[in-house]
Formats: sequence, structure tokens, C-alpha cells
Amino acid sequence: MARQESYALGLDFGTESVRALLAGTRSGRVAGEAVVNYPHGVITDRLPGGKTPLGRDWAVQHPDDYLRCMTRATKQAVKLARIRPDRVCGIGVSFTACTMLPTTADGTPLCMLPKFTGRPNAWVKLWKHHASQPQADKMNALAARRRQAWLKRYGGIISSEWFFPKALQALDEDPAVYRAADVFIEAGEWLVWQLTGRLTRSTCHGGYKQCWHPKAGYPKPAFLQGLHSDFANFVRDKLPGDRLAPGTRAGELTAAMARRLGLPAGIGVSASIIDAHAAVPGAAVAGPDVMVMVMGTSTCHMLMSKTEKLVEGISGVVPDGILPGYFGYEAGQVAVGDIFAWYVDHACPAYVLREASRRRMDVHDYLSSEAARLRPGESGLLALDWWNGNRTPFVDANLSGLIVGLTLASRPHEIYRALVEATAFGTMRIVELFDQAGLPTKSLVACGGIAQKNPMLVQIYADVTGRPISVAASPNASSLGAAVLGAVAAGAKAGGHDTAAAAVGVMCQKPSATYRPSKKHYAIYRKLYTDYKRLSDHFGRYADPVMRNLRASET
Amino acid sequence: MARQESYALGLDFGTESVRALLAGTRSGRVAGEAVVNYPHGVITDRLPGGKTPLGRDWAVQHPDDYLRCMTRATKQAVKLARIRPDRVCGIGVSFTACTMLPTTADGTPLCMLPKFTGRPNAWVKLWKHHASQPQADKMNALAARRRQAWLKRYGGIISSEWFFPKALQALDEDPAVYRAADVFIEAGEWLVWQLTGRLTRSTCHGGYKQCWHPKAGYPKPAFLQGLHSDFANFVRDKLPGDRLAPGTRAGELTAAMARRLGLPAGIGVSASIIDAHAAVPGAAVAGPDVMVMVMGTSTCHMLMSKTEKLVEGISGVVPDGILPGYFGYEAGQVAVGDIFAWYVDHACPAYVLREASRRRMDVHDYLSSEAARLRPGESGLLALDWWNGNRTPFVDANLSGLIVGLTLASRPHEIYRALVEATAFGTMRIVELFDQAGLPTKSLVACGGIAQKNPMLVQIYADVTGRPISVAASPNASSLGAAVLGAVAAGAKAGGHDTAAAAVGVMCQKPSATYRPSKKHYAIYRKLYTDYKRLSDHFGRYADPVMRNLRASET
Repeated sequence: MARQESYALGLDFGTESVRALLAGTRSGRVAGEAVVNYPHGVITDRLPGGKTPLGRDWAVQHPDDYLRCMTRATKQAVKLARIRPDRVCGIGVSFTACTMLPTTADGTPLCMLPKFTGRPNAWVKLWKHHASQPQADKMNALAARRRQAWLKRYGGIISSEWFFPKALQALDEDPAVYRAADVFIEAGEWLVWQLTGRLTRSTCHGGYKQCWHPKAGYPKPAFLQGLHSDFANFVRDKLPGDRLAPGTRAGELTAAMARRLGLPAGIGVSASIIDAHAAVPGAAVAGPDVMVMVMGTSTCHMLMSKTEKLVEGISGVVPDGILPGYFGYEAGQVAVGDIFAWYVDHACPAYVLREASRRRMDVHDYLSSEAARLRPGESGLLALDWWNGNRTPFVDANLSGLIVGLTLASRPHEIYRALVEATAFGTMRIVELFDQAGLPTKSLVACGGIAQKNPMLVQIYADVTGRPISVAASPNASSLGAAVLGAVAAGAKAGGHDTAAAAVGVMCQKPSATYRPSKKHYAIYRKLYTDYKRLSDHFGRYADPVMRNLRASET
Repeated sequence: MARQESYALGLDFGTESVRALLAGTRSGRVAGEAVVNYPHGVITDRLPGGKTPLGRDWAVQHPDDYLRCMTRATKQAVKLARIRPDRVCGIGVSFTACTMLPTTADGTPLCMLPKFTGRPNAWVKLWKHHASQPQADKMNALAARRRQAWLKRYGGIISSEWFFPKALQALDEDPAVYRAADVFIEAGEWLVWQLTGRLTRSTCHGGYKQCWHPKAGYPKPAFLQGLHSDFANFVRDKLPGDRLAPGTRAGELTAAMARRLGLPAGIGVSASIIDAHAAVPGAAVAGPDVMVMVMGTSTCHMLMSKTEKLVEGISGVVPDGILPGYFGYEAGQVAVGDIFAWYVDHACPAYVLREASRRRMDVHDYLSSEAARLRPGESGLLALDWWNGNRTPFVDANLSGLIVGLTLASRPHEIYRALVEATAFGTMRIVELFDQAGLPTKSLVACGGIAQKNPMLVQIYADVTGRPISVAASPNASSLGAAVLGAVAAGAKAGGHDTAAAAVGVMCQKPSATYRPSKKHYAIYRKLYTDYKRLSDHFGRYADPVMRNLRASET
């Protein structure tokens, strides 16, 4: 065992594909990885078979895609790694969330039964299925009216993307599907069930997406009855399974699944984790006071702490929600990379594209290099980063983007920089809210392509927050994080590790780069941030209703 | 006389060129017109001769350009008109303002004297010469401190473009030039002096640019002494000449000048008028309650009334300032066409240019045609039209442009429409300010290429203001207005007219198009305008200092 390295398999189920990653449990070396796209992808128009059209804002997936693609990706990764399959000691699963489905008692997805295959509510509702908005609205309104305590853990509002609205939609729209379902379950939890043959659940999915808390439990029957007379016993009847923290051994790989994947039967499988949250161990963070930002089209902020606090507008606080032993906090910015993409696509003049092309540069790289020459404040521009509403702290989809300071002399690289700064101010707001609640952030770690490709952006985040920011070494922190959890589920005796901290300590590389804040720039940004915050409060806290008026005027 | 038509000559001196226009005094027919560019154009780098560099924000002109180009343009216009020169019965002069110069007692520009030809302050300071800002700042501060009553007629602040700051700059920077000057005079007034051999001045230039009022006179010596110890007697010593209203006969064309121009000696010459103001008669407006908008890079709003009121942030109220017998009011928006040009140049994506090109359309026309399909409010966007600060009502160059309501779905034609709407709201603000002061606007007339080329824009202005808007028939309303004043200076006996109203009645065509407000759109825009006004007041009246902070952070 000391000589020969063992490997943990991370299975990271994204929106379009699954990635299988094999990491050495002693060296952390990524021996092999493979990505396989789901054949059905994201289904928004018609159910497979082509007969049943889907409504507006629907987004479903095919559960077979998960199993088939997982199998292919795993086999490819093992082959690429050139290791003996019996060196694989454990499996971790990370999954988009809340992606959920109804199943029979034996785990068969309802949509796989001929009777229900033409019924949209029998299918896997993907995280970005937004057709449950009426149910979410109803649930938020009732929870506010009845002063439900659980609502505070989610910043006072839950999303249409979450578990209860999606289940309630099935009951509202197709009671037969609802009644036929023995189980409603998150796809990540279902996947672990498929691998282990045991129905368990995850504290992570439960805490962040299913309104669950280890002490308080779920929303109570009296409340659920207020949503629909047949919904009262939803929890008792349709949510079987104990909740386990990610990294906890949920069970062992079944013989059947072992054959299918070409891996040893009986190896440990971890309770599942949300993909963004898997990036925390994947970014080599296993303890408190370090904020992990998973940056992409949006940014998800995660922080662990030994204490439980209520923080305004966060997405959730969950005991053992990310790693065992810590309260896991999540907050977020709804649009980040999306804003920069919008700018380049819809507001960037032709001469910038021409110049970038002449220099053989990506447009974002070119704009960033030009913007990097500016001093903080030099452009005289300030923006609110709400192009897709605001999550933390206002939790309001009707808020919108704003730019102020525009003059005839305003130029593209100045606007681009102002947009980057706006997203940095949005992150600072989150850091500050946590700080004021007694949850300090000493440093930050950024994951995702934006952070790895854009030094200007990371430096601005450091200068705005006044804190050092590291860029995670792994380009696929979630997959690596899943592998880390697989190693913990395996345990030290089987070639893995007994704690997440131990696994992270040896399996995850230290950050590839660290950006330190400039004192001078921080001082300038403090003033701009004061303006940002005052503007935010002015428009976000209803002093000026203009943003909501404008949303209302559109329809 | 009854048989043969007489012609009035309008000489319209713009920033880059002079236009000579011959209009029939009975038919209004434009018989001939010619434009001649100033050889020296706008001089910003070095004085003619190339030895003397100019400082930052300097802009001067060569007085010989005015005389030579006027001569060529007049001769061309007469030639094109195929009329006998003795059919020309009067001359009107309109001129950019405040464009001013120091001269000797006989009218020789100081810069034409060898002794002073290398001294910047001896030259003609063009209206957009902004190097007198320190003098304007000093004058505004002292006037506010000493509660000077005249300041209220100008919305509480005067511009660096005006007469006193430009003269004071000469005294501050080059006392020898100041001492050598027997006269400081506006170029329009100087031109009339050259034509008639008599030094007279204009109520228009005086009232709008020289802090003059027929009853109150000029700022008093005690005040002027506070600006500079040698400035106390500036008015007494260096501002000779009676003030006459535009249309009043300032004198007769001298024999020498008649020979030069090829026109009859002794014909009447009108007191000069500011070019924008000449557009009022040129747009066929000779009475109260009709607001004339001269729309270009900026917009100048003019309204006449029998009563004198103080209105917040206007550019001036002057008895006989536009036409005799009325108080002439001027207000303004600093950037209008400039904003649309900025958008197309610096914020419009390549695919819009490509599509416009494919359709062989001007980009503005294409964006306007797409924007015209939107309902008011449909874009969910709102902007403040302050890309170059705000004139009326806040008179603050540090205010800046703002867009709110931006989302990932915001598209170019929506932003373009929001910018057009913002300028319409800015005009509505002016209409409302006048209205609240007891100066009603029943309808508006728009002059300028923007209004003639863009029906979408004019319709939006009608829908926003809830008032009919006509587009002036003449593409060169200022030149035609100058000709109208020439006809009045000639008088009916000489083939002209005895009053401006009579001249306008027969010489100016009715508007080419009238846009009536849609009640439905007006109702929607009332709500959006309420938001616009609240945002304006929030940022303009110091409740939120962000715009000024941003300007301060740039340096």
C-alpha cells in the first residue's frame, strides 16, 4: 500500500456532460480524466420521442444519459490513466443542483416507465428548469406570511430552481405522476443510490436546495398543506433516506455497477455534493475563514465556519453542508462572466474587435490588457453588477444593471473595467456581510476559467477586497473535489484518507498564483465601494423603485 | 416694387464656415445660397504664422476669414440667384456666440496689429474657447458670495464661454493687450460695425452672453473690481455702443463695403443675433408659447413671452433678446446628437453595423427603424442624458450619463431608443420648468438635421411632452432667420417688412411635418418621466454625490 498509489474517482455531473477524473490519493496526480457529453443534452422543446412539447422555461434531462456517460467517461479515464482498475479505492459524486426526479421505490425514474414517459413532470428537472416559478412564488409568500424560521437560512427567499417548488409543480400539474412517485430525489443522491444500491441522501443537497436542517428538519406538514391539500405529507411519504455529509461513506459499489464501470466491487462511495461545493476541497480548502469563489457565468461564494450565523441574502447555511464538522455558507452573484460576455456581444464596438483580431488576441484578453493600464477610478465610471438581478444581499430578480459616470469620452476598455470592478464590489459586499456577521474572510481562492485566464480581474478583486486572492491550481476543481471525497469515503485503510483535511492536504496542489492587494488601490477602491454600496442600497432596498418599475413596464 | 421681388441677405457665421442666403421678401423663396469655409478654421494649436503655441482649451479664429468668406459667399449667392444685385434690400447677420475680440477705436482687431499678432489674447476667442474657466470660476464664486441679482437670470451660473470671463482672461494673462484694446466686442456686433461703419451692439448678444439687461445694465464696477483691480471700469471704458434688438436697423451698408460685396450702398443692416436664436424666425415662429428647439450635437430651447419670469437653470432671459417686443428665454441640453454619435462610435456592436450596411442604411437610420418597433417602456431601460453634464436645470458640468435597467437581454436598438427617450425627457423637464413658472409651451418646432432625418425621434418627443411637434421647413433656419431680420431692417418701403411678424408671415414656410402625441404613449411616458425626474433630482440635487465623486476620482 505504501509503495503502490491508490486512486480515487471523481464523477462530476455538469449541465452538458460528465467528467471522470482519477487522482492519486498520495500524490494528488491526475492520472486520467475524460469528459462525455450527454446525448440528449438539455431538453427544452420536446420530450425524447418528440411527441410531447415542453412549456416555457422547462429544462429536463434524460436519466439514462447520466449512467451511460458516466460509464464511458470512467472507462476512458481508467484507460488514459494506464492503471489497474483495482487501484481505484473510492468514488465521489458531484452534481448540478437542484436537479431532481421522481422514482419508484426501487429507484427507477418514473419517466422510464412507459406509462409516464410522455409526462413532462415524470422527467428529471434540471437545475435551470424555471417553470416552477408559480410554486416558488406561492411558497415564498406563504412562508413569509407564516414567518417560517427556515426562510431566514436562505436570505428570506427560495428559488424556483429548488426542490420543493419542483416537486409541488408535479403535484399541481400532474397529480398522477406525483402519486405514482414513491421517492422524489436529487439526481446526485439518485446517482449514489444507483452506485451503492442504498437510498441515502446528502446534507449538502438537503441543506442548500431542500430546505432541510439537521435539527429543524424540513418545512412542517401544516405549512406544506397550505401549499396544496395533498402536499402535507410529502416529506414523510416521499423523502425516505438518511442524510450524510459529503465525504461520508454512503455505501459500497455494487457488483452489478462494478461490472458496468469496470471497477472493483465494494469500494467506498461518498455521499453526493453539489458541483460548486465540491470545488472547495478541490481548491485545497478544508477549513474555515477562506472564501472559495467558483467563477463562471455566475459566481458562487462558499465559506466554512465552526459557528452558525444568519447572514442577509445568502443562499444557505448548512451544518456539514460542504465538509463534515463545519457550517457551510453559500452566497452568490447571479451574473459575472455573463456580464462580460454580454458586453462583448452587444455593446462592444467593431474597432475593438478589429484591434483584438489584428493582435491575434481574444477580445476579453485585449480589453483586459487595455483596462489593466487604467488606475482605479480613472475612468470615472461605476456600475451595479445586476444584469441578471441580485442574489446576495437583496435576493431580487427584478433588480437590473446600472452604469453611471458615462461621458462622451467614455471608451470600451473603461466600461469593461467598470463591469469587472462592479463584480468585484459585489463580492466585497458578500465578504463584508459575512464579516459583519462574525464570519471573517482572511483570504479568497478563485476557481474557474475566468480567474485562471484574467490576471487583471483577480488583481482588481484583491485590490477591492483588500485580501490576498489565490487562483486554484486545478482547472477542474469540482471533479478533483469529488475525487477527494471519494478518497475519504474509501478511508485510509483502503488506500484513501480518514478525513477531508488529510485528503486535501496531500491530494490538492497549493494555488497556482496569489495576488496581493495594493494598499494604494485598496484606499481608492474603499471610496468607490462606498459609492457602490450607497447606490446598491438606494436601488436595492426600495428607496428608489425605478428598477422594479422598469421591469413592470416591460410587460 | 410691387411687381419685382426684393431679396434679403442672411449672413450666418458658423463655427467652420459662413453661409450667405438670399430670400425673396414676398415669396420667401430661397433664390441662392453659398457656403464658404474659413481658411483658418478653428485654431487650437498655434497662432497663424506658426510661432506661438496656444494653451490647453484655447480656440481662436482669424477675423479676416469672416470678411473674406462673407464676400465670396455673398457674391456666389447673388450669382446663383441670378438676380440683379440692386434687388437686395437688407442684410441680417447671425453669428456664433460668445465669439469675441479686442479692437482699436476704429474697429481694427488687435491681432491685426504687428505688435499684437503673436499674442493669443489679442485674437478672436471662439465660442468654444474654454481656457477662461478660471476666470468664470472666479466670477461665479464672487457673484454668488455677493448675491448678484444678474446671476439669477442665468440659472445661477455663467459659462467660461461667455464675454466677461474671456475679457478678464486678457487682463489676467496679458495686461498690455487689455490696455491697448479700446473696445471688446462680440464678433457678430463687430461684423455689423464693419458693414455699417457704426459701432452698435445687440440686445441678443448682450442679454445672453454679456450679463447685460436693459434696466439693470451690466455687473457694477464694485463687483468687477473684486475680480481684478484694473477691471472696475471695463464696462465704461471698453464697451461703447448702444444696444439694439435683432431686426432693428443698426445702420446702412457703407460704400466701401458695398463695393466689396457687390451690393447697393445704403441698404439696411440689422443688429446681429446669435445663430441659434436666428432659428426662431427662421422656423416661422414670431410669437409666444411656441418653443423652438435647435437640435444638433446639443439642443438649444427658445421660447418668447410677454412676461418676465425667473426659471431654474435657464441660459438666460432677455428683453427683446430674440425678437423685439418679447422676453426671449433660452434653455439647453448640453449633449443630444453627441450622445447618439457616441453610442454608434463607441458602444454599438459590429453586427448592427453589418446589418445596416447590408440594408444600405445609415447606422442611425437602421437603429431608429428597429427602435421604432418598440413600445414605450418595452426595453425596460431608462437613461439620464448627461453625457456632457447638465445645463437646465442643474447647470453642472460634473453630472454624467447613466443607464439603468440593463440586463443580459438588453439589445442595441433598445439602448439607442433609451438614449433618444432620455433626451426627450430632458426637453420635457425644460417644458415643465417653463410651464411651472407661468410660461406655457403649446407646441414645439424642431430645427436641425436630426429632426428632419429621424421621425422616430420627433414622435418620441411628441409622445413624451404630450405636445405637437413640427419640423421646421428650412434646413437652414438660422440663415433664413438672418435674412428675415435683414428684411425687417430694410423696412417695407425699401422692399422689406416693418415687423418681424410680417416678415415671418410671408417669408417663412409653415413646418414640413407635424407629429401629434399618442395619448396612450403619453400615459406610459408620464410614468417613465416620473422615474426620470426622481433619478434626476436624486443625482442632480446632491442627494447622492456619486457623479461628482466619480469626476473627482478621475484626476
